[in-house]
Amino acid sequence: MESKKSKILIIGVTGRLGFELAKASLNSFHPTFGLVRDSAFSDPHKSQKLHTLSDSGVTLIKGSLQDEDILIEALKQVDVVICAVSSKQVPEQKLLISAIKRVGCIKRFLPSEFGSDPERSQVSDLDHNFYSRKSEIRRIIEAEGIPHTYVCCNFFTSFFLPSLVQPGLKSPPRDEVTIFSDGTAKGVFVKESDVAAFAINTVDDARTLNKVLYLRPPGNVYSMNELVGIWEGKIGKTLKKIYITEDELLKKIRETPYPENMELVFIYSAFVKGDHTYFKIESSGGLEGTQLYPQITYTTISESLDTLL
Amino acid sequence: MESKKSKILIIGVTGRLGFELAKASLNSFHPTFGLVRDSAFSDPHKSQKLHTLSDSGVTLIKGSLQDEDILIEALKQVDVVICAVSSKQVPEQKLLISAIKRVGCIKRFLPSEFGSDPERSQVSDLDHNFYSRKSEIRRIIEAEGIPHTYVCCNFFTSFFLPSLVQPGLKSPPRDEVTIFSDGTAKGVFVKESDVAAFAINTVDDARTLNKVLYLRPPGNVYSMNELVGIWEGKIGKTLKKIYITEDELLKKIRETPYPENMELVFIYSAFVKGDHTYFKIESSGGLEGTQLYPQITYTTISESLDTLL
Repeated sequence: MESKKSKILIIGVTGRLGFELAKASLNSFHPTFGLVRDSAFSDPHKSQKLHTLSDSGVTLIKGSLQDEDILIEALKQVDVVICAVSSKQVPEQKLLISAIKRVGCIKRFLPSEFGSDPERSQVSDLDHNFYSRKSEIRRIIEAEGIPHTYVCCNFFTSFFLPSLVQPGLKSPPRDEVTIFSDGTAKGVFVKESDVAAFAINTVDDARTLNKVLYLRPPGNVYSMNELVGIWEGKIGKTLKKIYITEDELLKKIRETPYPENMELVFIYSAFVKGDHTYFKIESSGGLEGTQLYPQITYTTISESLDTLL
Repeated sequence: MESKKSKILIIGVTGRLGFELAKASLNSFHPTFGLVRDSAFSDPHKSQKLHTLSDSGVTLIKGSLQDEDILIEALKQVDVVICAVSSKQVPEQKLLISAIKRVGCIKRFLPSEFGSDPERSQVSDLDHNFYSRKSEIRRIIEAEGIPHTYVCCNFFTSFFLPSLVQPGLKSPPRDEVTIFSDGTAKGVFVKESDVAAFAINTVDDARTLNKVLYLRPPGNVYSMNELVGIWEGKIGKTLKKIYITEDELLKKIRETPYPENMELVFIYSAFVKGDHTYFKIESSGGLEGTQLYPQITYTTISESLDTLL
């Protein structure tokens, strides 16, 4: 399906996902470029990551999403752009999109999404425009006719699984566990490095052009009841269940200040409203990653929980 | 947005929609080709249409969806393929798709859809695979990575509007009218020539690549109650309303033999289940035609009803 490996520019390589994207890009033999802000080189943690990437063969370009001239120069050198900036920076992709439109050579753009589908969120106005900001970027990309793929990976395993979806905890509970609503809505967890591997596979794949790539790996789609059951099996103990109703959770979300309440909003979205899984992928112009790329081995929830024992 | 006009091959040019597509293609200055079965030339009605098209500048190629060699030769001459065969022939597009894959030069394929969205149909098993056959074709196109646009125009005005959605009637009712369920679900009607104009506009438009084009022209989206109201206004008379419940309609569908019952299935889908309009277009990877192409003037339902007075 592919003739030669596209050159990939990754924006946000010092971030958790961006770093994995850069490594996955190199692992797949793509000439790999990273756009890095000046300030990152003086941050000890970030500069260490940049050394690692540079030593591995990533070409680092100094610049930010605000430098139009630098963006244009960087874009001229590549075929594909993957943006992995934080959710706060989502609106800052607008100048990048107009630069992509201007250079005209970009064959695929993956904007900063990498969560649940913003068009399928059912949290009404609770999310402080977290999802509408992503939708707005989609509309601009589509209006400009820029070739794109949206990656909806749902939850990163590292974000919610270590606490078994218990707000405030750092490790899974061993005595009692809170279950939201009736605990039957199914959520999806995928490890960042696996998300990166799936994302990199899409860039030269005609099947994913202008489509949404959803990740629902069979070993990673579970309800709270199932998650707790798996964990109970691993620790050989039955936990006390505390049930929080939808109304109680909504009350808590409204009483907790923003942005601290966003963790609860994400839990509400995934494990009460079922936003990761309630819809058929085909009806969203989408494709499922493990079905498209069965050769990618991914870390299952059970394997991730084993590391927390 | 476009540099030069794509060459378009239309399959099914003697059909009602295919004929309009060929005319719309010529009107937009696309070099236009038609694939025509031998038998069409000896059918008086079809041969007249073929003369009209040929005189207008359409290059007619003799062949059918079963002739792989002819398909390959025809495809090599064009950039775009629009298939407008009947719903019965939907599965026969498979050889065409594999030929498109083989030649590798087709920049856009519009398969035979031109109805409501097969992925959004909520008629369960009543449709004798009418929708699943179209979905299957979508999956093959997507699996092969063939650049495509799906056109979901909903109802053709000529099909249901002349009877005001009254099965068995040839003209709108003037005494009593049947309303299905509570009459509030909104359906969409678009004239074939308008559907053709929208479809032709998509072929060189990067925004519609691998997307669904939905038609919901503001003047053409109405519930049964609204339709009847507009008609009553035009004839200056209030009609007697007969209400048929969802259960009664379902019973009638089951009692009427296939394929005669399909008219009722389409009514059930549009005016009971609301399949034309119940979903947000964005969440289906879709775009709305009148928003993309505001310059296209279309015939409204009110204008169409005026011709029936």
